[in-house]
Amino acid sequence: MSDRLQQALADIDAELRASTDWGQVATYIPELARVPLHQFAIAVASAEGGLYSAGDADTGFSIQSISKVFALALALGRSGDQLWARVGREPSGSAFNSIVQLEYERGIPRNPFINAGAIVTTDEILAHRPPREALAELLTFVRTAADDDTIFINDAVAASERSHGHRNFALANFLYACGNLKNAPELTLGTYFHQCAIEMTARQLALAGRFLVAAPGMPRLISRARMRRLCAIMLTCGHYDASGDFAFRVGLPGKSGVGGGILAIVPGRASIAVWSPGLNANGNSKLGTEAMERLAAAMDWSVF
Amino acid sequence: MSDRLQQALADIDAELRASTDWGQVATYIPELARVPLHQFAIAVASAEGGLYSAGDADTGFSIQSISKVFALALALGRSGDQLWARVGREPSGSAFNSIVQLEYERGIPRNPFINAGAIVTTDEILAHRPPREALAELLTFVRTAADDDTIFINDAVAASERSHGHRNFALANFLYACGNLKNAPELTLGTYFHQCAIEMTARQLALAGRFLVAAPGMPRLISRARMRRLCAIMLTCGHYDASGDFAFRVGLPGKSGVGGGILAIVPGRASIAVWSPGLNANGNSKLGTEAMERLAAAMDWSVF
Amino acid sequence: MSDRLQQALADIDAELRASTDWGQVATYIPELARVPLHQFAIAVASAEGGLYSAGDADTGFSIQSISKVFALALALGRSGDQLWARVGREPSGSAFNSIVQLEYERGIPRNPFINAGAIVTTDEILAHRPPREALAELLTFVRTAADDDTIFINDAVAASERSHGHRNFALANFLYACGNLKNAPELTLGTYFHQCAIEMTARQLALAGRFLVAAPGMPRLISRARMRRLCAIMLTCGHYDASGDFAFRVGLPGKSGVGGGILAIVPGRASIAVWSPGLNANGNSKLGTEAMERLAAAMDWSVF
Amino acid sequence: MSDRLQQALADIDAELRASTDWGQVATYIPELARVPLHQFAIAVASAEGGLYSAGDADTGFSIQSISKVFALALALGRSGDQLWARVGREPSGSAFNSIVQLEYERGIPRNPFINAGAIVTTDEILAHRPPREALAELLTFVRTAADDDTIFINDAVAASERSHGHRNFALANFLYACGNLKNAPELTLGTYFHQCAIEMTARQLALAGRFLVAAPGMPRLISRARMRRLCAIMLTCGHYDASGDFAFRVGLPGKSGVGGGILAIVPGRASIAVWSPGLNANGNSKLGTEAMERLAAAMDWSVF
Repeated sequence: MSDRLQQALADIDAELRASTDWGQVATYIPELARVPLHQFAIAVASAEGGLYSAGDADTGFSIQSISKVFALALALGRSGDQLWARVGREPSGSAFNSIVQLEYERGIPRNPFINAGAIVTTDEILAHRPPREALAELLTFVRTAADDDTIFINDAVAASERSHGHRNFALANFLYACGNLKNAPELTLGTYFHQCAIEMTARQLALAGRFLVAAPGMPRLISRARMRRLCAIMLTCGHYDASGDFAFRVGLPGKSGVGGGILAIVPGRASIAVWSPGLNANGNSKLGTEAMERLAAAMDWSVF
Repeated sequence: MSDRLQQALADIDAELRASTDWGQVATYIPELARVPLHQFAIAVASAEGGLYSAGDADTGFSIQSISKVFALALALGRSGDQLWARVGREPSGSAFNSIVQLEYERGIPRNPFINAGAIVTTDEILAHRPPREALAELLTFVRTAADDDTIFINDAVAASERSHGHRNFALANFLYACGNLKNAPELTLGTYFHQCAIEMTARQLALAGRFLVAAPGMPRLISRARMRRLCAIMLTCGHYDASGDFAFRVGLPGKSGVGGGILAIVPGRASIAVWSPGLNANGNSKLGTEAMERLAAAMDWSVF
Repeated sequence: MSDRLQQALADIDAELRASTDWGQVATYIPELARVPLHQFAIAVASAEGGLYSAGDADTGFSIQSISKVFALALALGRSGDQLWARVGREPSGSAFNSIVQLEYERGIPRNPFINAGAIVTTDEILAHRPPREALAELLTFVRTAADDDTIFINDAVAASERSHGHRNFALANFLYACGNLKNAPELTLGTYFHQCAIEMTARQLALAGRFLVAAPGMPRLISRARMRRLCAIMLTCGHYDASGDFAFRVGLPGKSGVGGGILAIVPGRASIAVWSPGLNANGNSKLGTEAMERLAAAMDWSVF
Repeated sequence: MSDRLQQALADIDAELRASTDWGQVATYIPELARVPLHQFAIAVASAEGGLYSAGDADTGFSIQSISKVFALALALGRSGDQLWARVGREPSGSAFNSIVQLEYERGIPRNPFINAGAIVTTDEILAHRPPREALAELLTFVRTAADDDTIFINDAVAASERSHGHRNFALANFLYACGNLKNAPELTLGTYFHQCAIEMTARQLALAGRFLVAAPGMPRLISRARMRRLCAIMLTCGHYDASGDFAFRVGLPGKSGVGGGILAIVPGRASIAVWSPGLNANGNSKLGTEAMERLAAAMDWSVF
């Protein structure tokens, strides 16, 4: 497989670099807005142990909402199914930062991958330990999954996020008012902003995703049943109100971040990371989504 | 596999018949309301060609919304991707018959499996031929898939549905007012009500589902790429606002009907049909959902 | 007062005819779409018994939603306060034909002046007699109020409305599905479309509005308390989602129709009718609203 | 009038004190929750200069949202009609603290009397001077209107409000994220919480309301045109989603507060203040609303 896969990655990199429309870099925080647009990376960690990549695969980027996957795994490991009393697992049909659904459903976010649900997930982690330890534990989880201790949190990004995060402050205060936040909004958000500011390269992210691949030799951080459930939530909710489209076009569980990264899992076979900072109208990486679609087609990778 | 599978079906049948809570039979049309509650059937058509079943697997039931899967396959076959200009493919986050999303999104239903989207799909089929021929063609599709010419449309159910279908009349008239219905509401709904009134046994439905299994020997009615896409929509949208939960618990693309049936696909391996007329709060078969979860666990069947 | 009033009307007519923007004629039914745009009329029936007018005050127009005022008076006369179990009396904050609020509030329209609420009001009238008699009674009410037996229903408009009334069919079927329509949707809507097709001149409409003026010599068709309540609903709900703006700018209870007419009441003093078929973005007569604002200012007429 | 009015107040006080259901004291902040339930006051300042009262008319209470009337008058005085670019003047059809409408309408609150609109109004006042001066100016406005320099802001209530105001923090942060807050959420809310914590007796509030009465001898703080407009907004929006009901039952412009107070205006004739801390389901004073209805009926006071 390795030659075919390496060739596919090289082809995709070459084809996509010829794109005339690279999307728009996220502008909601200055630290993301200044990332150069014309960058693209793709990396695959295979179940056989190989790591393949093309493009800017050693350039670090802010994983942003992809961190919600790791945080959810951690929260479920600590709190188990009682987390589901605080957050649902249904697609929301709304934008990532919508507050409408939250009001109609009295403070229970639809799923852990919209911002409100991710804030609740982080708040649940904080029920077991203080912020500093919680972040350390999350970072340890990610580093263990990626087998790479150099992965770090970009404090400048976290600070930028805090100073421009009014919509998240709105969500957290609303959750608190509904009785679905255990810690002060500032405290939970402080942790949440740092979690989103984890920085990785595409190669690191592909390696970190291996804990969901379910194959011998992969890091075993959660049970097989939980892997399946996490993948199910990624497939139905991982791309906000474009989740259905990603399932339709790519057919793999995935999670995108506003920094331009996407992590996708081929159960039993591979972990894929792509990155390109330009976003499409739904807030997902434009070239990243296209790369996922091409790779899935080229390798005949689909869960369906 | 056959012995293990047959044993699993028998076990599930035995266990679920001991249930104290069988849910509630749908009451919105008289023909469904009078179906006896305590019935259960499960059937599996395997890629190897076997057909296995347990329970009331030769009792006919109204497939209702499961017909949307066949109608969508037919509409895509005729109209191709231009159907997607009229209906989305995102989970709706709403109940099956909600009109709210339709108003906010100006008459474009979220996906083909909520009622509004299914009405548009049927309307698209009618663009190519009159109602009688359209229904004949749909029935031929289903009979070919199941290799069974005895499958029929229950006219009494269709008539009952028409005389109690005010909410569907609301949806169709709203779609028409938004310019997203090509035929008169009465005409499209007349066809839609008949489509929903297709009657099958669990064994017949399991056989009919084989066109989505993607394995040698299965009826080949649509392309491999389209199979994957249909399965993707089933996984993200097949159980209304409990789609995420079905993906989480069962991990298979499925489609439920208010008659108590559920069709699920194990790509490359099997087509599963369950039936029990009692519904849960989301309008999906209560025992049927539980049976799917048990069977998927017992056979280690999951796309994830 | 009479000279000053007559002068004010003449001035307003002269000023508004110099307008460069007359709004847009309603296009949703052909019969309204073909009404010539550049028409304007204003008429005032004073408590002293005078009738003053300017412009095209003898040209007939379709009163459309202004009929809801007469229908509500009639329904309250027959059913009394039990009507309020079926329809609220709060501003809706939504467009006149929105179905969203109806779904969230389970089939109870916000007030009798949005379409859904008016359909329920007409349906309530039909609880007491068949459509033909109900329409005759409504017409008698209007003719008595105006003291003019030549007022009639324009059947061509009613027919046009029926054949293009899909959104109203959506509302009526939705109401029926919620259990808040006693008659078949077709029957209630048939009556409703005829009610909306009542035709009057501005002079006739000003006279017809006198039953709400509460002064000696005015036609006494309803109690003083009910006059106040009807005026209250007109002020808070009479201009759909521009009701607050009309109260702010004009300060009088009023009701607009999509045919370009507006009826306003100066309690104890006068009934005002204006008409100009061009509508503004909210679906209210553009010049009509401006004329009301100018007249209220010129005569120092405001309830506040 | 004075004897008849004094008798009416005494009768209402006597009748309402016999009530078995006094509603529920607001519980959302501790300072309000501990106010004894069985209190009632009514006071009227007439255009002729009299001040009449009954019940606990010298007991101070927190005016809460009634302060929005004074703040709006002040903001309009400073900014004029440009305020309307930031906030609408339509009834919202929603609860006082809803965030749903705000998201659908991109951060423009429906009117200045729902919380979001009041926060914007306060923010506008702060555009002209710092918080301390803004509060001083508002207090001066109120004291001048009431001709009473002892009116004060209860700092304990303001502090309690701040520590329990998560929903208001959600609204303010949301407004900020939409670009419709000029100051930091904490700063605007700090001012807003103090404004709401103004304390008055019913007699003081009746006197303070005289600036809206429009009669010789009344304090003239704003223009006649602006009085009318403020009254129009009070009538259409003054009681949240029960505004239509208040207009229907009482027929006067009014504004309620969660502390149990209501201020109503009889244009040209009187300013009425009632207070009873128990609220009804809509968050308006239960006995207060009843008292207003009885007084309006007894004195034949209605704008309609």
